Order: sequence, then C-alpha cells, then structure tokens
Amino acid sequence: MTYCVAMALQDGLLFASDSRTNAGVDHIATFRKMHVFETAGERLVVLLSAGNLATTQSVISLLRSRCGGDGASLLTVPTMYAAAELVGQAVREVIARDSGGEMTQGVDFSCSILLGGQIHGEAPRLFNVYAAGNFIEATEDTPYFQIGEAKYGKPIIDRVVRHDTALKEALKCTLISFDSTIRSNLSVGLPVDVLSYRRDSYAPAKPYRVTEHDPYFNSIRQRWGAGLRQVFSELDDAGWFEQ
Amino acid sequence: MTYCVAMALQDGLLFASDSRTNAGVDHIATFRKMHVFETAGERLVVLLSAGNLATTQSVISLLRSRCGGDGASLLTVPTMYAAAELVGQAVREVIARDSGGEMTQGVDFSCSILLGGQIHGEAPRLFNVYAAGNFIEATEDTPYFQIGEAKYGKPIIDRVVRHDTALKEALKCTLISFDSTIRSNLSVGLPVDVLSYRRDSYAPAKPYRVTEHDPYFNSIRQRWGAGLRQVFSELDDAGWFEQ
Repeated sequence: MTYCVAMALQDGLLFASDSRTNAGVDHIATFRKMHVFETAGERLVVLLSAGNLATTQSVISLLRSRCGGDGASLLTVPTMYAAAELVGQAVREVIARDSGGEMTQGVDFSCSILLGGQIHGEAPRLFNVYAAGNFIEATEDTPYFQIGEAKYGKPIIDRVVRHDTALKEALKCTLISFDSTIRSNLSVGLPVDVLSYRRDSYAPAKPYRVTEHDPYFNSIRQRWGAGLRQVFSELDDAGWFEQ
Repeated sequence: MTYCVAMALQDGLLFASDSRTNAGVDHIATFRKMHVFETAGERLVVLLSAGNLATTQSVISLLRSRCGGDGASLLTVPTMYAAAELVGQAVREVIARDSGGEMTQGVDFSCSILLGGQIHGEAPRLFNVYAAGNFIEATEDTPYFQIGEAKYGKPIIDRVVRHDTALKEALKCTLISFDSTIRSNLSVGLPVDVLSYRRDSYAPAKPYRVTEHDPYFNSIRQRWGAGLRQVFSELDDAGWFEQ
C-alpha cells in the first residue's frame, strides 16, 4: 500500500509520500512515489502516485519520455489543468494496454495520482487524478487530498489544516499524520519524501527525505505521543461511568 | 457503515457501538448495534454487530428466539467459546439462507460480530466472529477488536490502550476514537452505546447512550481538540524546512 498527501494552501503547495510498496507481506520494497518535473523559474509539476506499481511506473516513464519530444508534455503544457489532462490520458493509456491481455484475471491495474504545481501565469493548483483518467481539483474549502492508506492519518489533518494554514504548520501536521499511519499500518513505511513549494517562487524543488534516523521526525513523534498522553490523562472521567 | 470497539482488559470488558446505518447516502437510519444477553449473577454476553443489517438483525433474532428453547443458547452455553460457536453457526445459517436466492447479485450479505462477556466459571473473554462463522479471541497482546469503519479511530487506541489500562481510561480513549471517526466519516454517527463490565461482578448490564447533547462527551471532545491543537502548536518547526 501507500500513503500520500498533498495540500494547496494560501502560501503554496506541500507534498509528502511514503516509499513502501508491497505485493503480499512477503514482497516488500522501497520505491520513491514522488516525481518532479520542473523548469526552474518557470514551472514546477509534482506527481505522487499510489496503486499498481507497474501502472504508476509506466505512467511516469511515458510522461518523462514525452518531455523531450515535439508533442505536449509536462514541461510544455500552458496550465496545470492541461497537465492533469496529460496525466489522465497516460493513465488511461497504460491501463488499457496492461489490462488487454489474457492473463489479467483478478489483477487490479488501477492507480491514483496527486498532481500539483505551478506554471507561470497561473496560481498553484492541485489535482487528484483517478484511475479512469478523470480528475478533481482542490479548492479553498477542501485544500488537501490523500491517496492510499488515507484513513488513519485523516483525523489530525481534518482538525488542523485549513486553506490559510502556514506551510510549516502543514508540514508538522503531515508528518504527524504519517506517524499515525505508520504506527497503525504495516504497509506504509519510512522513508517519507517531503516537498514544499512557496507560491510564485518557481524555485528549484528540494525534496527532503525523512528517514527513520531523522532527528526532527523522531523528536516530534516522541513529543506528539507524549503530548497526546498528557492531554488524555487530563481529561475527566465520565460521571456516568459506574463499573 | 458502522464503528464498534470492544476491549478485554485486566479489569473487565468495554463495549461501544455507533448507531448509524446507511444504504447509500440517502437512506440513513438509526439502529442499535449493541445486544445484551444476560442472567444476573451468572453471565453477561454482549454482541456488537457490523455489516449487512438484514444479516445482523436475523442473527440476533435467531439467537434470541433460541434462548427460550431446549437447545443450546447464549443463556445456557457453558463457556464463551461455545457462545462464539453458536454465533458463528447463526451467521453461517443466515448468510446461507439469504444468499441462496436468485435476486442476490451484487449484494454483500457479510457481517462481523464482536462477542464478549463472562460466564461463571471462567474469565471474561472477547471474540471477533467473521462472516464465515469462524472467530478469533482477544489476548493480552491484542486486547481490543474493532469492526466497521475502524481505521480513523485506531491510532489513538494503539497509542493508549494496553491490557492493564483501567476501564475508565479505556472508556475515555474509546470516546475519543469515536469522535475522530465521526468527524472524518459521515457513515458513523451518534448516539454511541457504551457498556462496561467489571470482571467477576456479574452485575446487570447498564448500557449508557451517548447522544449529541451529552455534556461529558461534548466536554472531552472540545478539550481533546483544544489539547491536540495546543500540543501541536508547541512542536518545533523542522530545521530543514526551507520554503
């Protein structure tokens, strides 16, 4: 499985993805699920992928291979909307190809992709591209998307993140969301790749990889856990609790 | 959907279940999912049910109707293990009956049942009965089970509950787990039925219903949310965060 989160906030974009893939519990591997396409000073396009690894790798390979050619690519499309159309088209293409054979019974070829970025001339935008190739866009009311094992880490995001949440705060919240997910689900694992992008900066992407030895991550994990237990211990007992 | 939790702790048993059922978002209703079978002074048997409502209601009806008869029933079986066998058999019987027709295409008849209690002569025990009628039992290492929409509310239980957690603490944790689930998932809703049972008490069951107007629940919801935000705000920002 996988866990990815992306947020489109007032100050910019935040992306985070784990790196564990598994086909059964005895075939676990590490794959980066964050993919960056950029032209410094002009555009940043980031994809986070979940679902069938053969599908998502092929989609990324196709999108990369097209960047050098004459046709539309993630490095040439004029808008993020057009980028989402390209990604959706690549998803449809790969799934149609792979599901066309005779040995496909029972295989789930589907994938989900979070696509965010900024192309000069428009604001940062974030899309959730489905396996059908269609997509939805984040708005001020719903500024974040999750794909993969999303449920464990959703409550903390629902409590903290709004459109005007600062990027640094959103990053903390995202790391706590990953901590909760990793604790409760074996199929999501470190390292976690994190990338933040400040609106209108068009700065070169500097993804940061959070490993199990990361002092900051370990510090907030520990302090968050201790803080929760502290808050918990200060809650009153129920007056109606009789047994 | 549904969310139910049951715990088998050193001091006794704790049960909690929401009461929302839905068939699509436009057919939402309230049904109690906690069912008590008891003989004061001798036994308490509690079922929490999730899954197809027709299946779970039939299972409970069959189990109730058998309590007056000559055969084995939840009021006569000598052990909780035998109670789990009875429940498993009833589940198989109902699913076999309902899935036998011709109009069943696409219907999921499955259900999950948490079964806990104490019968004089043995310790309190807790089982998770699957749709196949088989079951697993909680142990000191894994003292709790969840059924239904379990993921949102799992992290807080994983952080707090151990076999030696006091019942009052487990109750607080369970209510917070429900709060997180209800906030993140529309298919789980109040009221929540709660029942605690102190080991060897054989006291009459007094389920408590937590409604949206419950002052205690609203107080810990509010204080938990505020406490989380406080802990969160005190966490350091990442030193490596550049944007």
